[in-house]
Amino acid sequence: MKDKLTIIKVGGAVLNDNKIFKTFLNNFSKIEEKKILVHGGGIIASNYMVRLGIPPKFIKGRRITDEKTLDVAIMTYAGLINKKIVAQLQKLNCNSIGLSGADCNLIRSKKREIKDIDFGLVGDITKVNVNFINNLIKTNIHPVICSLSHDGNGQLLNTNADTIASKFAIELSSIYDVTLKFCFDKGGVLTNQNDSSTIISSININDYESLINQNIITDGMIPKIENCFNALKKGVKNILIGDHDIIKNEKDCTKLTLK
Amino acid sequence: MKDKLTIIKVGGAVLNDNKIFKTFLNNFSKIEEKKILVHGGGIIASNYMVRLGIPPKFIKGRRITDEKTLDVAIMTYAGLINKKIVAQLQKLNCNSIGLSGADCNLIRSKKREIKDIDFGLVGDITKVNVNFINNLIKTNIHPVICSLSHDGNGQLLNTNADTIASKFAIELSSIYDVTLKFCFDKGGVLTNQNDSSTIISSININDYESLINQNIITDGMIPKIENCFNALKKGVKNILIGDHDIIKNEKDCTKLTLK
Repeated sequence: MKDKLTIIKVGGAVLNDNKIFKTFLNNFSKIEEKKILVHGGGIIASNYMVRLGIPPKFIKGRRITDEKTLDVAIMTYAGLINKKIVAQLQKLNCNSIGLSGADCNLIRSKKREIKDIDFGLVGDITKVNVNFINNLIKTNIHPVICSLSHDGNGQLLNTNADTIASKFAIELSSIYDVTLKFCFDKGGVLTNQNDSSTIISSININDYESLINQNIITDGMIPKIENCFNALKKGVKNILIGDHDIIKNEKDCTKLTLK
Repeated sequence: MKDKLTIIKVGGAVLNDNKIFKTFLNNFSKIEEKKILVHGGGIIASNYMVRLGIPPKFIKGRRITDEKTLDVAIMTYAGLINKKIVAQLQKLNCNSIGLSGADCNLIRSKKREIKDIDFGLVGDITKVNVNFINNLIKTNIHPVICSLSHDGNGQLLNTNADTIASKFAIELSSIYDVTLKFCFDKGGVLTNQNDSSTIISSININDYESLINQNIITDGMIPKIENCFNALKKGVKNILIGDHDIIKNEKDCTKLTLK
């Protein structure tokens, strides 16, 4: 039987609220099985960009990463957020290590090709260093990975944290029984965006098509859920989407299943 | 016979000049023996502080680290500078990992007690994780350590990079023949601060006293050199002070010796 591994992806909204941030890390530290934390921090980066006089750029709701934006992403994701998480986890006796994709060649990527939109310094993952991560996990060091990769040619690249979490979940599924949990600012996928009680408890691939047709799953949630089904097909055992509470409570959230 | 280990400490002035930065890392990547890079980045942090409207505070030439200053230090030291170094070293096929003192409990410290000056969120090192660093070195992973420690109670602390480099040099001297090189913006200790050709090629403890009396060694250089003699007494083999060129050329610089 394989050992269990939990991979948690947490978004900027959870990280930006000091009280939720501490509760979240407290719960994370109590996960008894092996664990990895993957984080973004777009909200915090955007706040610093405004303060530095760098206007955040978006096209069709998606962030465009120019050089100055990338610098702020590096400072906030790999610096401020990552190290504050690690220091807090050390306090909780959870021995962790903060990593970007450049460290030990953890996440190699290719700058996204320009099609209709030029996303700028954004990377699509080509390879992750599974051996290095597994060596850490095996010695009970808990990796905290931020959403930056590198191209092997000296360039750091902004990279989607959901995709990083899914990629590690897939690659580590050959060694572990992997549960992947996406923590964001809602309790799960909602049928009514304005009513937090309308969490869909379970979505399978057939439901998914129909939920898109009904305009219940829209915009940014579409690639998020596609990502999940892809990971399930490639061997990830369980995938849950919900708020920061899903680390310890799996009742109120959305489970993704193939059938 | 012990293996050789080179520890390089590099200051903000070298890191702030893009051309020197690349030459420096190119030379660092070519060191054939085992190696560690320790860096600060005060100049870069100060620049961002000005841009963010946070006035850098100094008392008697020494930085005072309040909460906002620490945030900028975390962003620039552990984020921007550290990850750009690592990405560049990966390009040069030098497999490196960027670390702060919180990562894997690398550098534990105690907040400096208030005597005549309240330095704020500054840490004095109490313990370094030699085993973890040695495990990395043994597997040919080159640590890049920034000048931040943590107190084990969730607080990151600004910590002198010279002291970090010396501390690791001392602790690793039981395992390796350690050479410690301090790279800064001058060619070494100068007899005339305005004449870069007046490098003192060698200083021993007796010279040191006399150089202080002659006002040749003053201000920030005094603790720097005291630090060096302390490290030599505790087993570090060689210590050199000079510009970024001393990585490959040990001729034009200041060597510290006990006798």
